[in-house]
Amino acid sequence: MGTPLPHPAASDIRLDQVLSALSDPVRREVLARIASEGPKFCGDLDFHVSKSTMSYHFRVLRESGLMHTEVVGNHRRITRRDDLIETTFPGLLTAVDLPSNLGRWSEESET
Amino acid sequence: MGTPLPHPAASDIRLDQVLSALSDPVRREVLARIASEGPKFCGDLDFHVSKSTMSYHFRVLRESGLMHTEVVGNHRRITRRDDLIETTFPGLLTAVDLPSNLGRWSEESET
Repeated sequence: MGTPLPHPAASDIRLDQVLSALSDPVRREVLARIASEGPKFCGDLDFHVSKSTMSYHFRVLRESGLMHTEVVGNHRRITRRDDLIETTFPGLLTAVDLPSNLGRWSEESET
Repeated sequence: MGTPLPHPAASDIRLDQVLSALSDPVRREVLARIASEGPKFCGDLDFHVSKSTMSYHFRVLRESGLMHTEVVGNHRRITRRDDLIETTFPGLLTAVDLPSNLGRWSEESET
């Protein structure tokens, strides 16, 4: 395990930051991929943009509260923070066509 | 009547632009004021920011499709395009605490 990265608490989630993070199609696609395929390692996501650009997108998603990043050795494993976002801004994820991954993917799924 | 300003058609509304427009608190407040008080003239809205900054906010709202701007002589009258946004992205306005103004304000209201 590496040093944990900072994540905003529920009380620090700001709508400005969440909407700004969601306004980029690559960032929405990252969230959509996690929802449909489950938690990913950053390195496994290729959007044909530079590594530094992807690092920027991952940071924006983490700092907005939309995504959780866990440091695992030299890798970073990302998951969505759907419960937090859904509780803070009910209906927002569905409205932007990124519904909560509940029911669409689970740790037990092997398909 | 002055020269009409360009507005995006329904098919040209882009989620990127709408979310980016909504990510600013002054722009959300403009939409909230129109919902609660009815259509406004731009000059009647004072957010303690410069005139050029407000012009920029009004332009972003218009170009995103969230707002309609009508040129009336030397003034600009702004309204929300709730039907368009609600049809294109159902639930979005409610999720960001800017529900459609239907029922909250009407042209007939004199109160």
